[in-house]
Amino acid sequence: MKVLVIGAEGTIGKAVVEQLGLRHQVISAGRSSGQYQAEMADIAQVRALFERVGKVDAVIVAAGSIAFGPLAELTPEQFRVGLDSKLMGQVNVAQVAQQYLNDGGSITLTSGIVGNQPVRLGASASMVNSAVEGYARGAAIELARGLRINVVNPTVLTESMPAYGELFHGFESAPASRVALAYVRSVDGAQTGQVFKVW
Amino acid sequence: MKVLVIGAEGTIGKAVVEQLGLRHQVISAGRSSGQYQAEMADIAQVRALFERVGKVDAVIVAAGSIAFGPLAELTPEQFRVGLDSKLMGQVNVAQVAQQYLNDGGSITLTSGIVGNQPVRLGASASMVNSAVEGYARGAAIELARGLRINVVNPTVLTESMPAYGELFHGFESAPASRVALAYVRSVDGAQTGQVFKVW
Repeated sequence: MKVLVIGAEGTIGKAVVEQLGLRHQVISAGRSSGQYQAEMADIAQVRALFERVGKVDAVIVAAGSIAFGPLAELTPEQFRVGLDSKLMGQVNVAQVAQQYLNDGGSITLTSGIVGNQPVRLGASASMVNSAVEGYARGAAIELARGLRINVVNPTVLTESMPAYGELFHGFESAPASRVALAYVRSVDGAQTGQVFKVW
Repeated sequence: MKVLVIGAEGTIGKAVVEQLGLRHQVISAGRSSGQYQAEMADIAQVRALFERVGKVDAVIVAAGSIAFGPLAELTPEQFRVGLDSKLMGQVNVAQVAQQYLNDGGSITLTSGIVGNQPVRLGASASMVNSAVEGYARGAAIELARGLRINVVNPTVLTESMPAYGELFHGFESAPASRVALAYVRSVDGAQTGQVFKVW
């Protein structure tokens, strides 16, 4: 299979590329790294990316930013960070990918545990992660040509605990290598409309 | 209690006003109707609304638009309709309301069954409704002064079946009068962080 991984240089992306690379042809992309660069919040750049990459069998997105902050201080602009990047960035990829995926191909997006298990400072993250899963739930029933879409919902990464651990006391972290398995399961499996929780 | 209902002239809003009005002082607001007018997608208008209304004990939002369309044809602009209106409109109200609610006051937002049970043309609705619930889940744990937030998740309204019935074959509809009970339960009850499904 030919698999496009967006966010390939991130902590999750690297682990995904490593595992999928054992059996598949992986094409890496990212905002500022990888074989192809694109800002996925801009659908024109997403279209240009696929125009250059061509047909693929699977697309994975492990990228997207969200602003964290105390609920009472969160501004529309801070909510907009996550809506533009982690939500619409991924939605843009999924929407454009439909025209470039071979029959039966798959789209795998990324949400996160905070959508289900809220943490302080994380109201925007809860909102955005839930939205990603909602989009995939809706999209799954309308995809044509046997195309599939799933979401990987990871807990906090073990690798991220030094940076984000203060928000996640008592959460069981998972190493990126374990989270990567869920992406492999989405790509190589046959399910659609699923949320693969890694927690 | 003093209860601000935004979307008071809508199908749900009218039923909510009728039931809450039996025991509470209801203030009605809407984009172009009610005692006060405000476009909730614009946080400056939301701030101005609360500045005029003053302190309240409960805020209900039963308003917000979403664009429907075939998945493959949905544009970023169409997704933006729901994100700006039904999502950020409600989030704007919830964020500003925190400064105007009396201690122990409540915020009640509105999602919808399509977030959980997708229908054709409804990918944006699945996304936006899930996002509203995600925001409330996140906000509930950070609200100060005993403030509460819940979401009412109605099935398709019986009153809406003539207009939307084609999308909802086999769905059990509910009359607005029944859906209104869930808002009453949120306002007069003591729960927070809940999704009250009316289906």
